[in-house]
Amino acid sequence: MEKENTVTMEELQKQIDTLQKKVTRIEKSRKDQLSIAIVSGDMDKILASMVISLAAAAMDTKVKLFFSFWALSALRDKNKKAKGKDFISTMFGMMLPKGRNKLGLSNMNMAGMGPVMIKMLMKKKNVLSLDEMFKQAGELGIEITVCEMSMDLMGFKKEEFIDYPGLRYAGAATFVADAGESAMQLFI
Amino acid sequence: MEKENTVTMEELQKQIDTLQKKVTRIEKSRKDQLSIAIVSGDMDKILASMVISLAAAAMDTKVKLFFSFWALSALRDKNKKAKGKDFISTMFGMMLPKGRNKLGLSNMNMAGMGPVMIKMLMKKKNVLSLDEMFKQAGELGIEITVCEMSMDLMGFKKEEFIDYPGLRYAGAATFVADAGESAMQLFI
Amino acid sequence: MEKENTVTMEELQKQIDTLQKKVTRIEKSRKDQLSIAIVSGDMDKILASMVISLAAAAMDTKVKLFFSFWALSALRDKNKKAKGKDFISTMFGMMLPKGRNKLGLSNMNMAGMGPVMIKMLMKKKNVLSLDEMFKQAGELGIEITVCEMSMDLMGFKKEEFIDYPGLRYAGAATFVADAGESAMQLFI
Repeated sequence: MEKENTVTMEELQKQIDTLQKKVTRIEKSRKDQLSIAIVSGDMDKILASMVISLAAAAMDTKVKLFFSFWALSALRDKNKKAKGKDFISTMFGMMLPKGRNKLGLSNMNMAGMGPVMIKMLMKKKNVLSLDEMFKQAGELGIEITVCEMSMDLMGFKKEEFIDYPGLRYAGAATFVADAGESAMQLFI
Repeated sequence: MEKENTVTMEELQKQIDTLQKKVTRIEKSRKDQLSIAIVSGDMDKILASMVISLAAAAMDTKVKLFFSFWALSALRDKNKKAKGKDFISTMFGMMLPKGRNKLGLSNMNMAGMGPVMIKMLMKKKNVLSLDEMFKQAGELGIEITVCEMSMDLMGFKKEEFIDYPGLRYAGAATFVADAGESAMQLFI
Repeated sequence: MEKENTVTMEELQKQIDTLQKKVTRIEKSRKDQLSIAIVSGDMDKILASMVISLAAAAMDTKVKLFFSFWALSALRDKNKKAKGKDFISTMFGMMLPKGRNKLGLSNMNMAGMGPVMIKMLMKKKNVLSLDEMFKQAGELGIEITVCEMSMDLMGFKKEEFIDYPGLRYAGAATFVADAGESAMQLFI
């Protein structure tokens, strides 16, 4: 009887260990983390991304932003210039907004009057400006990754982007890997 | 031997209790719930939001919608008016669509002909109208929250919005908190 | 004492079994799966969808795409024609882009010059074309479902769509059901 018991105890322990492993795997596969793929370069969409990200970071949720396509405009530094661009990259660089303060609205842009109005209102209503939001994002450890494929496609160079703590460069696989273990994923 | 056994039994119980707590935490952190941040105010995007929400609610999934920026237009009641607005809020109020039946399309809007065509087709094909979808949403307990920052920015007042059961007002932090414990999150 | 032990052992086993069931339910409720509702028909958005999907599929993540509204244009086969359409469906068919190579950009479309530039750049930078991406998607087992309501609304017929392995037709409920058990959901 005792021996039987012992065996069963070992069996129970084994079952518990197996369960423990599964639970650990589940916990690791869904971290308290927010991953956002930002593809849009409209001022309102970038604003929404930053407002959500700052709210999440304030709750100690890890935030990882993946900037691609049009969103790269929001990461350009108006005071920086890249050299040695080919013709088409130079053209793209001229046509796309140079930095987060030059972005248009997805709606009611009205040849640039819309964004001016929104910025005035944000100031009046004491909403943080995009500049301040990016600063805070950096301080709160929000991770920003630049999509390498988009960068290559649009001819942007690393030396054109804003100074941001730990700015990274990676491909879509990195976004998917991060998003897969995040509790929240968004596409903006 | 018996004593040894007893100790091990207690240990096993402890391990099971620890596991049980972890599993409960996991279950609570990922409810059968759909959170949508709706930022777009295009008719097609609002339609998509409602179709997905109603489908989810029909499957007993809890649905929480967070309306912000342009999407606020969809919550305006054309028969209601707010008093005491400042100049810029009055202007915004005039420029933005007054209610879900005045929304434009993100594509092929054709100066308002597009939405008219879509509405005709929806009727012909027996798809619920947006009016009916919002009614059903209320009946199915779909929660709607108005983004307070957007409201403040655009100068909208509570008395301008539609009558909707339990309409709430909150900030982005509420969206993030809800989204974090939802099995599904979308940004539209 | 022994009897007591035995009882406790049974109890422990019961607790372990209950936990095991919960863990299994959790595992099933959050598969290594990516569900995307693609509503936009812009070339850049379809590109983003495919780049993310292929990256996920390459990591052995199951990918399920749900094409609706404007995104149906991306699934049209330019060489196929549907018969017996009513007037409004024929009009829609004429106005909407015929296939993934006719899509416009959400930004900088410049009357079709934007997409031409992007395609040139993609070729130059050795990025897969949309044609190649769809081919690879099929080979990697990425599932594509056509939204039946959108199809009906826009008057598209099954015989107009591209040949794609296992192309499915279903409603929003299918998207929600799939998304609910996916680790990742996106709305594009």
